[in-house]
Amino acid sequence: MRTHLDCLPCLLNQALKAARAATADEELHRHALNAVAAIIPELPMDMKPPEIAQQCYRLVYEVIGDNDPFRGAKDAANRAALGVYPKLKQIVAGSEDPLLTACKLAIAGNSIDLGPGFDYGSMDDIVGTAVRSPLAVDRYAQFAADVKTARGILYLGDNAGETVFDRVLIEELRRAGDAAIMFVVRDRPVINDATLDDALVAGIDDVAEVVSSGSDAPATILSQCSTALLELYHAADVIVSKGQGNYESLSEEPENIYFFLRAKCELVAELLGVAVGDAVLERGRAAD
Amino acid sequence: MRTHLDCLPCLLNQALKAARAATADEELHRHALNAVAAIIPELPMDMKPPEIAQQCYRLVYEVIGDNDPFRGAKDAANRAALGVYPKLKQIVAGSEDPLLTACKLAIAGNSIDLGPGFDYGSMDDIVGTAVRSPLAVDRYAQFAADVKTARGILYLGDNAGETVFDRVLIEELRRAGDAAIMFVVRDRPVINDATLDDALVAGIDDVAEVVSSGSDAPATILSQCSTALLELYHAADVIVSKGQGNYESLSEEPENIYFFLRAKCELVAELLGVAVGDAVLERGRAAD
Repeated sequence: MRTHLDCLPCLLNQALKAARAATADEELHRHALNAVAAIIPELPMDMKPPEIAQQCYRLVYEVIGDNDPFRGAKDAANRAALGVYPKLKQIVAGSEDPLLTACKLAIAGNSIDLGPGFDYGSMDDIVGTAVRSPLAVDRYAQFAADVKTARGILYLGDNAGETVFDRVLIEELRRAGDAAIMFVVRDRPVINDATLDDALVAGIDDVAEVVSSGSDAPATILSQCSTALLELYHAADVIVSKGQGNYESLSEEPENIYFFLRAKCELVAELLGVAVGDAVLERGRAAD
Repeated sequence: MRTHLDCLPCLLNQALKAARAATADEELHRHALNAVAAIIPELPMDMKPPEIAQQCYRLVYEVIGDNDPFRGAKDAANRAALGVYPKLKQIVAGSEDPLLTACKLAIAGNSIDLGPGFDYGSMDDIVGTAVRSPLAVDRYAQFAADVKTARGILYLGDNAGETVFDRVLIEELRRAGDAAIMFVVRDRPVINDATLDDALVAGIDDVAEVVSSGSDAPATILSQCSTALLELYHAADVIVSKGQGNYESLSEEPENIYFFLRAKCELVAELLGVAVGDAVLERGRAAD
């Protein structure tokens, strides 16, 4: 997905939010905002939105002198999500199609995003939404068929806390087939994206092999990924891509990718043919 | 009301919207956005939001080479509002308290705003909302008492098209008392704010004296107003202030001002203690 001009004001909002997460000092908030405003005229529009976001977050973190302003928010999300883990397992176990229910929960878990303006409410809200709402794009049947025969599944994580919902889905994926499952985290902190520690807190290492993307992009920018990650990416039979950033970076790639996300801005919603907030289980167009 | 850091990303969005209203040329859109981004670091936060907006719109108009990009939108709003004028008169005439109904319609007409992101729907939506929705802040009783004895009412207009709703209210104000009524328009085009021609199209000159603010601010910035306007302002017994820009510029002034608006952003909504989209008839705090 290419960057749109509408992404640029959104970056300023994100810079402000990140600065406010780090400090109450309004002067620093203004410095962070000014720093991003100053590079806007130079940002190339042929980059993907998360590549541009990566540049802005690096700059903001430098200005505010904090390379992980959302650490507190991530810890809180991990704790809250672990608190509902037994409930998630119960909902999945009691449902007619446990894999489908786990997919819907994993998509609902993608609400835990502090990038674009989006208030995700409580964990109970998230679980309630997952159970009640239909998928606005629903490629579940094909996904369920593919995971049954897959030998390797690459699962691209997104946010901290969401990782607990991911664990529930991975547990169902292990029931559904025999695939080796690799779970990918960001190499270094960016926004509230899951890094290695967030995967470990959620217990992902008990159910999958955890690997780093090799990059601090809030997405999967292939040109920035480690060789090891690229090998796994190309060898996988099925790729589970969580969240909007991974979608923005991989929507045009030819692999057998399934995008699990909640649409968080007008542009992405329009591209997917859904409304902002909708739950989406889409398949890469190139794979069809 | 002081400018908040959140106003700065909003300005970038407004710059983009204004550029898009003028031309389909994406390069010009980018130039407009860049020009505003470039001045963000220098914008003083002790100005009121509409003063900063005024600077940005002037800059955008210069970059895109069009000093009235919303002219088409204003003409369309004028036509659509004139189309529902007979219906507005019918609703007012058939209501229990015609002045109250005219107030609610005038507030609903303030939806016709192309500044902050806000989709105002059709004229029928606007009329329907006015009739159905209660006022989230309701100082009507005091307002109705004040206009009965007022000798001079200064009516600060806001947007084109909205002027037709204003005419309906002015007609009821004339029924309610004997005040001389002056209707204020912006001196030159800014966003979709009403200028002299928009007041004339709505027939305001048949029911009030139309005067210019002397300024192209999308608000009433007293330091920019003409001497003639300031005299009227200070002599008026009641001031009717339409819209968010006039509220942002006058919320702390000591005169007997009534603010008629729909809240269009989180900051203003919070200041008024209402939700975004709510209808407000507030009285200046200093006058209480």
